[in-house]
Amino acid sequence: MLDFKLLKNDGATKARAGLIHTDHGTIRTPVFMPVGTRGSVKAVEQRELLEINAPIILGNTYHLYQRPGVDILRKFGGLHSFMSWPRPILTDSGGFQILSLSDLRKLSEEGVEFRSHIDGSRHFFTPEKIIEVERTIGADIMMVLDECPPYSAEKDYVSKSLDLTYRWAMRCKEKFSGTTPLYNFEQYLFGIVQGGTYPDLREKSARGLVEADFDGYAIGGLAVGEPVEEMYKTADFVTDILPENKPRYLMGVGTPANLLEAVERGVDMFDCVLPTRNGRNSQVFTSAGKLNVRNSTYAEDESPLDADCDCYACKNYSRGYIRHLFSVDEIFGLQLASLHNLRFFISLMEQTRLAILNDRFVEFKSETLGRMKSLKKEET
Amino acid sequence: MLDFKLLKNDGATKARAGLIHTDHGTIRTPVFMPVGTRGSVKAVEQRELLEINAPIILGNTYHLYQRPGVDILRKFGGLHSFMSWPRPILTDSGGFQILSLSDLRKLSEEGVEFRSHIDGSRHFFTPEKIIEVERTIGADIMMVLDECPPYSAEKDYVSKSLDLTYRWAMRCKEKFSGTTPLYNFEQYLFGIVQGGTYPDLREKSARGLVEADFDGYAIGGLAVGEPVEEMYKTADFVTDILPENKPRYLMGVGTPANLLEAVERGVDMFDCVLPTRNGRNSQVFTSAGKLNVRNSTYAEDESPLDADCDCYACKNYSRGYIRHLFSVDEIFGLQLASLHNLRFFISLMEQTRLAILNDRFVEFKSETLGRMKSLKKEET
Repeated sequence: MLDFKLLKNDGATKARAGLIHTDHGTIRTPVFMPVGTRGSVKAVEQRELLEINAPIILGNTYHLYQRPGVDILRKFGGLHSFMSWPRPILTDSGGFQILSLSDLRKLSEEGVEFRSHIDGSRHFFTPEKIIEVERTIGADIMMVLDECPPYSAEKDYVSKSLDLTYRWAMRCKEKFSGTTPLYNFEQYLFGIVQGGTYPDLREKSARGLVEADFDGYAIGGLAVGEPVEEMYKTADFVTDILPENKPRYLMGVGTPANLLEAVERGVDMFDCVLPTRNGRNSQVFTSAGKLNVRNSTYAEDESPLDADCDCYACKNYSRGYIRHLFSVDEIFGLQLASLHNLRFFISLMEQTRLAILNDRFVEFKSETLGRMKSLKKEET
Repeated sequence: MLDFKLLKNDGATKARAGLIHTDHGTIRTPVFMPVGTRGSVKAVEQRELLEINAPIILGNTYHLYQRPGVDILRKFGGLHSFMSWPRPILTDSGGFQILSLSDLRKLSEEGVEFRSHIDGSRHFFTPEKIIEVERTIGADIMMVLDECPPYSAEKDYVSKSLDLTYRWAMRCKEKFSGTTPLYNFEQYLFGIVQGGTYPDLREKSARGLVEADFDGYAIGGLAVGEPVEEMYKTADFVTDILPENKPRYLMGVGTPANLLEAVERGVDMFDCVLPTRNGRNSQVFTSAGKLNVRNSTYAEDESPLDADCDCYACKNYSRGYIRHLFSVDEIFGLQLASLHNLRFFISLMEQTRLAILNDRFVEFKSETLGRMKSLKKEET
């Protein structure tokens, strides 16, 4: 069973600070996890991830299963060794990617058949198969196979999907219990709460999974197009049902404000492609708000992306230089913006954690969100 | 006058080892200079250039003049400060780029008029203007404006071009002498020997420039399509005319073998986009020869790109992992291949220098070139 220590509950909100122990190191929560879908966090080096203090990164089972594939991953002794990453890894099961990326997907009780979006080859993922693949990848934290219905789905569809996802989760758990890690460290399994924005379905999903006693619980099927208030309400509702003594992970979320709002509602873990994807598009997160560093406004700006930031980009380069790199399409521009954005998200969670431990989460959140609005007027 | 110390002449060949002192540090020759055309060596960070011991990098006057432009460079205190690079910079004048990249170029006695390849804007570069721009960039070593005729040019054309290039060089020298650095360090000016593969024209060019007493001499107009033996012959011929006590720079050259052959013929300095351009295309230089790491041969290869290399890529990642990065189009793949290739070129010149200092250049060259053929059969 995953060793999760709850260190502190905020007095005024559901925010909490904790520690997750894994054989690859300790994760301090709340935590933001950079996304390294295919064994690389885009445009950022592994040693830079250590430098910006990323405690854990994500990999994606659907993508890694296709390339490099399980044979190569097994030969290299798993993903940690393949990509030379010493800290924990969490793998998403790829349920979401199968549904959003692959052609000709066919769901059945048994599992999901799909055609690869890369070479058209046919594959069949069962809950058991996903566990085998995640064992081979060697993630510290593995996710069950789930179906993630679109926001537009009717309640009746969501309800049926939920039941299937529940049965799949149970099969994942059974397969997980009946197998052991391939490499020399422990692995853990999280359940995924689904149910769209329907409280009764969310409750049913959460209660079923809690009863089955997973190592932790993800809240899936959010940030898929629903209004942000619905997302907050649903997260709030679900964390009330989840046990205190297990980590809670809000999948695919989100903006700095989303993170703070969700922490307030009792969430511990987050992942999102936003920092790296936006970084590659010259959008930079700062303590004063978002800016587009490609903007000509910044051509002569000698200040760093964010004066409050301690990353390599902010300690060494000006907005003017980084703006130039983007305007002449130099790769170094997107390296710097990606690195900075990741540091910004990681640092935001580090500061949030400190605030919780120091009984000042509410003030911290309000100050931080207030300051992030300062740039709003400059942006066009 | 540039402080160049000739430490050692090889007994058996014209190879030599020396030291170039600049206010931004000492350059040990022979030296390979990474190309950072627009203020960034593509996909490689400035701290990584320090880590792989790049003693000096290049910038390009034509490109930097257009973007970010002289106003911004002046405002930031020159290119060193703009890009946070503490070591020496050499700027090519951009003569070659004007002729190869820009539309509607019109050469006259006065200078060259051209239309920017970026926005179509019209510009006029005179020798005096180039010096002003290079003063504003703040390169430690500046190159004169020259015309670089194509290899296909008739002797008559090359001869006339040479005379114009000579008059331009004299005007550059005069402007250089009549101006002072804008920032707090010395700058130096190199002449460029032209003359195609015609010995009499090369001799005329070299003698004229030597008489004018530049800080160093570049050999231009080679590696533009001529047979490699012609390149070696011409370099050999020209270094016989150039003074012993000034550095010699073979522009735009070349492969590892080219470098060793040119060192043997008395050349001290090299620059080339090969390591970074090839790196971005998954072509990797190793002590056993070139390989294409994207090749499926390397999918399960747990060895580093080059077991003899001390770079970050070789110390931490396998060919199999880097092959995977290229096959899924991860930017990190080209970062690692570029970094490694640069280290390979820099290290090759470091080892060459040691061999010269230890009186074993001939053996070193023969061993090194011999070993580089080992991979030939594997490549298809």
